[in-house]
Amino acid sequence: MRCCIGLGSAGELELGRAPELTLIGLTGIPEIQVGDDLAALLVEAATRLSLAFQPNDILVVTQKVVSKIEGRVVCLRDVTPSPASLGWAAYLDKDPRLVELILGEATRIVRMDQGLLLAETRHGFICANAGVDRSNLPGEESASLLPLDPDSSAEAIRNRIRALCGADVAILISDTFGRPWRDGLTNVAIGVSGLIPLQDYRGTTDDFDRPLKATRTAIADELAAAAELVMGKTERIPAVLIRGYRYVSGEGRASMLLRPSERDLFR
Amino acid sequence: MRCCIGLGSAGELELGRAPELTLIGLTGIPEIQVGDDLAALLVEAATRLSLAFQPNDILVVTQKVVSKIEGRVVCLRDVTPSPASLGWAAYLDKDPRLVELILGEATRIVRMDQGLLLAETRHGFICANAGVDRSNLPGEESASLLPLDPDSSAEAIRNRIRALCGADVAILISDTFGRPWRDGLTNVAIGVSGLIPLQDYRGTTDDFDRPLKATRTAIADELAAAAELVMGKTERIPAVLIRGYRYVSGEGRASMLLRPSERDLFR
Repeated sequence: MRCCIGLGSAGELELGRAPELTLIGLTGIPEIQVGDDLAALLVEAATRLSLAFQPNDILVVTQKVVSKIEGRVVCLRDVTPSPASLGWAAYLDKDPRLVELILGEATRIVRMDQGLLLAETRHGFICANAGVDRSNLPGEESASLLPLDPDSSAEAIRNRIRALCGADVAILISDTFGRPWRDGLTNVAIGVSGLIPLQDYRGTTDDFDRPLKATRTAIADELAAAAELVMGKTERIPAVLIRGYRYVSGEGRASMLLRPSERDLFR
Repeated sequence: MRCCIGLGSAGELELGRAPELTLIGLTGIPEIQVGDDLAALLVEAATRLSLAFQPNDILVVTQKVVSKIEGRVVCLRDVTPSPASLGWAAYLDKDPRLVELILGEATRIVRMDQGLLLAETRHGFICANAGVDRSNLPGEESASLLPLDPDSSAEAIRNRIRALCGADVAILISDTFGRPWRDGLTNVAIGVSGLIPLQDYRGTTDDFDRPLKATRTAIADELAAAAELVMGKTERIPAVLIRGYRYVSGEGRASMLLRPSERDLFR
């Protein structure tokens, strides 16, 4: 299993740890348009900040700019709600055109209550409104949809950065999700390229040589959460450079962060 | 409501954002014993690393060292399981003495399946084994329980650091929780002192002057998650200094991060 790595010795255990971690917001990136070369904009922004991308760097990029570039922004005026969407919209007190978009993005409704529509997306993410979102978009009636394949989006950015400046930088695409039981939203990784998103400690031992059991850390989600602290809630900082985290390189995918349904007690 | 702050102008919105954030692991802290002066050990560790605590610094401290200091470590040999614990332990394939401890810490069982015992603690946290944990403890048969009042623990550390070196440093106590739907564990804040754990964007506008709705970020959980990237899964780095995050000062509590049961669709 690719996401399970053996960390046998103390030296190897230092992978996934860092005495110091730095996160730098890439400011000065202009408003993104469909078809823009995001990788070039990221390299330019880094250069303006006198940062040269280095091996082992991580770039966390918000879903919103990726959706904009990939044309995943819809004008609600172009959406005709179905009778089902009209009915559900009335129940949820939502715009029926938005409900139409959400149902189009959803493969399964997980909960529909208290004005919330929690759905599973084609990617397997479980989130509010199947990832359909109206914030930070130009135009009164715009809504953004999640990228069709955020892992591929991340991989394309990574490949283009490598072509532009030679550095192999791991890419995470982040989005803001709610969670049961705990209030407030946190950022998670919905697209991954160049790192293994789960740090697996099974088979290693703790400080007292006891085996660590059932310990897999969702480091990609923690990296996305950390980046949100620098990004804030507007898109003026759409990307954050994380330097100093010794991740495990590899062809990780966001689907590695999805709990298999047979181990999910909250379907 | 204390956790709701108005962020009216662009300048104020810069609160909760930072162009650069640094996380530094406090290494060299010795194995913790009951009654140790943790604040003094943290100040000593920072001094050894040539770090002087500054206003606006945040210290994230692991639950495990706080539990050790507060004597919340139990020897399983001293635990006599009840008949109920024996029965449940057989069903879950767990040590019945551990089940006895878990039931003592729990106020409500949320799920009991697949060898997992997911419970609500006296603090209102919903987590595996009601926070009872066997890793990184001396002795073959030790288990740690969550601090009785992690907010008070955090406040005591904060007050003692202020007394020792004059700096008012916000304190978060972190623990590692699982979550539905997504695989892997992430660190969250179970104790808070000196900052408001939710960043509330309601009443503010996005880049296109649209009101931001339903947007509250669990920054304390994101800070705890970020710190985990430096800590790793042993206790050799039991505390991380976070510098550069412009948090909202105030008497925040970990309970602010708990979703009220009437808004919880997954009880």
